[in-house]
Amino acid sequence: MIPYEIIEKKQNGHQLSKDEIQVMVRGFTDGTIPDYQISAWLMAIYFQGFSTEETAVLVDTMLHSGERIDLSELTGYKADKHSTGGVGDKVSLILGPLVAAAGVQIPMISGRGLGHTGGTLDKLESIPNFTTDYTIDKFKQQVADIGLCIMSQNNNIVPADKKMYALRDVTATVKSIPLICGSIMSKKIAEGIDGLVLDVKTGRGAFISEYEQTKELAQKLVAIGREFDLDVRAIITDMNQPLGSEIGNWNEVVESIDCLKGNGPDNLMEVTMELSVAMVVMAGKAGTDEEAKGILREKIENGQALEKFYEFVEAQQGDVDSVQNLEKYPKSKYIEEIRSPEEGIVQEIDSYKLGMTSVQLGAGRLQMGDELDPKAGISLRQKVGDSVKSNEALATIMTEKEDVLERAKSSVLEAFSLGEGQVTPPTMIHESISSY
Amino acid sequence: MIPYEIIEKKQNGHQLSKDEIQVMVRGFTDGTIPDYQISAWLMAIYFQGFSTEETAVLVDTMLHSGERIDLSELTGYKADKHSTGGVGDKVSLILGPLVAAAGVQIPMISGRGLGHTGGTLDKLESIPNFTTDYTIDKFKQQVADIGLCIMSQNNNIVPADKKMYALRDVTATVKSIPLICGSIMSKKIAEGIDGLVLDVKTGRGAFISEYEQTKELAQKLVAIGREFDLDVRAIITDMNQPLGSEIGNWNEVVESIDCLKGNGPDNLMEVTMELSVAMVVMAGKAGTDEEAKGILREKIENGQALEKFYEFVEAQQGDVDSVQNLEKYPKSKYIEEIRSPEEGIVQEIDSYKLGMTSVQLGAGRLQMGDELDPKAGISLRQKVGDSVKSNEALATIMTEKEDVLERAKSSVLEAFSLGEGQVTPPTMIHESISSY
Repeated sequence: MIPYEIIEKKQNGHQLSKDEIQVMVRGFTDGTIPDYQISAWLMAIYFQGFSTEETAVLVDTMLHSGERIDLSELTGYKADKHSTGGVGDKVSLILGPLVAAAGVQIPMISGRGLGHTGGTLDKLESIPNFTTDYTIDKFKQQVADIGLCIMSQNNNIVPADKKMYALRDVTATVKSIPLICGSIMSKKIAEGIDGLVLDVKTGRGAFISEYEQTKELAQKLVAIGREFDLDVRAIITDMNQPLGSEIGNWNEVVESIDCLKGNGPDNLMEVTMELSVAMVVMAGKAGTDEEAKGILREKIENGQALEKFYEFVEAQQGDVDSVQNLEKYPKSKYIEEIRSPEEGIVQEIDSYKLGMTSVQLGAGRLQMGDELDPKAGISLRQKVGDSVKSNEALATIMTEKEDVLERAKSSVLEAFSLGEGQVTPPTMIHESISSY
Repeated sequence: MIPYEIIEKKQNGHQLSKDEIQVMVRGFTDGTIPDYQISAWLMAIYFQGFSTEETAVLVDTMLHSGERIDLSELTGYKADKHSTGGVGDKVSLILGPLVAAAGVQIPMISGRGLGHTGGTLDKLESIPNFTTDYTIDKFKQQVADIGLCIMSQNNNIVPADKKMYALRDVTATVKSIPLICGSIMSKKIAEGIDGLVLDVKTGRGAFISEYEQTKELAQKLVAIGREFDLDVRAIITDMNQPLGSEIGNWNEVVESIDCLKGNGPDNLMEVTMELSVAMVVMAGKAGTDEEAKGILREKIENGQALEKFYEFVEAQQGDVDSVQNLEKYPKSKYIEEIRSPEEGIVQEIDSYKLGMTSVQLGAGRLQMGDELDPKAGISLRQKVGDSVKSNEALATIMTEKEDVLERAKSSVLEAFSLGEGQVTPPTMIHESISSY
C-alpha cells in the first residue's frame, strides 16, 4: 500500500493493518514520506480514531524507532509517573523524593513546558546549576545509588515522537486520543520501567477538558499498558483550578519543599498522595492503599522525604544551599498584588488563563526555544470556595517585564469569577483505572 | 488569526470568515504557509465541510490568485461546458462544434486526463499537429472568428488551483464537494463566460459514485454560479457504463466524428444533446428545449456541425486530412479481440476498471507527465442490456505494449458482468438543476 491509499483508508473509517501503520511512521521518521501526507493522515486519525489494536501498533512502531533503556540490572521495582499536564502541577518534584524515600526506584524522563502548562525540567532548572542532561549510563547509576533521577528527553529514545509531536503541534492534531496515547506510552515503555502511574487531568486548564474524553484517554492508556505487560494505573484528577497556590518555576520548587515539609496545600497533597500511594502499592512496598498512605506520611513527618529531595538536588549538581535557604533566592523586579474590586465567593478559577498569563510574565514558552525567567510567576491567595472581601488580595504576580504588567493584572482578575452562592471545592480525584 | 487557529476552527466544525479563508489560500499560494498545514486544513474541510458562503469565498479568493479573462469585446453569448470526468467522455469534441454551429460562442479551457478518466486536450492532440497552446489574445480572436476555441490551462489563470490540486491529489482530499466546487468554479468564472453547463457524473466510473453526494455537488455548483452572476445548469448524467463505445484518444475522435455525422451511439448522443440544448437555450438561441433540439438536429443533418469541426481543427493547426480520411491513421501493433467465455446478458460494465485498463494500454496517465499513445484504447462491442453469445466479441483492445496484453485482456473480461436476467439500460439523464 502506498501512503495515499493508507490516508484514504483511514479517512473512510477503516482499521489499518500493522504494515500500513508501520509504513507511515517509518516513512515519516526516515523522511521518505513528506510531512504534508503525514499531516493529512494525522487529521484523518483525529476524525476517525484508532482502535486499541491500531494504537498498540502505533506505540510499538514508535518504540522501535529508537533505543529502549535496559534497566534489568536494577533489581528493585522501577516506576514512573506521567501527567497529561496541568497548571501549577509540581507533583513530580514532591512525589519523586517521597516515593523514592519509600524504597521504589524512580527513573523519570521528563519534558519542558509549552503553552499554558509548565514542565518538570523547567521547574528543576530554576535551582541554580541543576542539570538534567544525562547519559543513559549515568541515569541508571543515579537510580541505583539514590533511587531517583529525572533527566531530559534523549534524542535516541523514540525519535519518531519528537518529529511527530512537532508536526502535530502546528497542524491541530495534538488533541487526538490515540496520538496522545502513542506519544506517552512509547516514551514510557522505552524507559524500561515495571510500573507507570498516570495523572490524567480533566476540566478547564487540562489538555482535554471534557470528562468523557478524558476517561476514554485513561482507558486507552491502561489498555496499552496491558498490551505491553506494564503495570499501569490511570488516575483522573481535577484541573478546574490550579494545583496548589504557586505557578512559575522557582515558585513551584518552593511550594514543593513546603509539601515535603508537611505544609502543602490540600488539593496538591491529595493528588500527590493518591499517585504516590499507587506507586508504593504497585511496587509491593505496601499491601493496601491505607498502608501505603501511612508509610508515605511517615516519610514526610520524619524528614526522610525532604532529605531525599536534598540528596537528589545534590546528585543532579543543583545548589543545595539555595533549596535549604529559600530566602536567598533573587526576587523579581515587579511584585504586584491583584486585589478584588468587590466582595464575593470564588466560583471558578480559569487555570488556562492563569497558565497563559504566567507565560506572558516569563514563566513559560509559546514556542520551543523561548527563554524562561525562573522567578516569574503567580501566587494565588484564594481558591475556589473562598470568601473574598472587597480590596482583599486575590493573587500576586512576579515579573521582570514592565510592559506586560497591566495586561497580566487584568487577565488574573478575569480568571477569578466571584459570585454570591456557596461553592463546594472541586473533588480532586475522580476515578482510578488499573491494568492489573 | 494564525493558520493553526484556522485549522482548529474548521476541525471543530465552525464556519470560517472571509479573512480566514483568504489567509490560508493566499498564504499557500505565495508559499508563506507550509504544505503540511494546508493539507491538515484540507482534511478538516473534507470532514467538516464548507457552507455555500465559505465556498463562495474560496472561489473568489482562488479566482483572484491570477488573471481573469475579459471577453467583453465578444458581443455574443459566451458559454462553456465542464464535466466532472467520466470514462469514454468525448462530449466536448461533439458539443463544441455543434453548439458553435448554432451560433453560441464557446471559449473552452480544458484539461488533461489523470487516472481512469481521459482529458479533452489529450483526445484533440491525437489529431496530428493539433495545438492547444494559446495566448489569451489568440484564444479570443479564434472565438470571434469561428465561435469555438479549446485551449489548455494557462498558468496565469487561477494559479492557486494548480498548487492546491497537486496537494489534494496526494493527500486524499480531492473528493471534497466544496474543494471540487472551488476548483471548477474559480477556473470557469475566470474564463469570462456568461453561461456554464455542467455535466455532473454519477455512478461507477464517476469521480463521486453515490447519488446523494453527486446531487449535493450539483446543487453547490449551481449555488456558486448564482453568487457570481453566472448562468449555470448542472445536469446529473449516468456513468454506470462508459459513454459511447470508444475509450482512448484517437478512438474517441473517430467516434465524435461519427456523432457529428449523425451516426453516434444512443447514450453518448443523449448526453451530448441534453448539454447542448441547455447551452442553446441559455444563449437565447431557442425559447424551449424542444426548439433547441430541432436546431441542433438540423445542424447535424445539414453537415454544418461537421463542417464546424473541420474548421475548428484547421484553426488549431490540426491535420484536417487525417480527420477527413480516418483510414489513413496509423494502426496499433497489437489489436486483439476479447471474446465472451459464456452466453448471457450484460448486467454491468465496470467503467472504472476499463478506464484503468486503458491507462495500462497507453491511453492515459497515472502521473502528470506520463507519455501517451494516441492509438491505444478499447472499443466496446457490447453495452449494458445486450445479449451475448458464447465466443462473441465483448471488446477490442489496441496497444503497442506486448507486456500488458494478457493483464489487460483479463481486466476487460472482469469488467463485463454477464447474467441471466433482462436488464434495462441505465437512464442517462438523472436530473437537471438551474441557477436561472
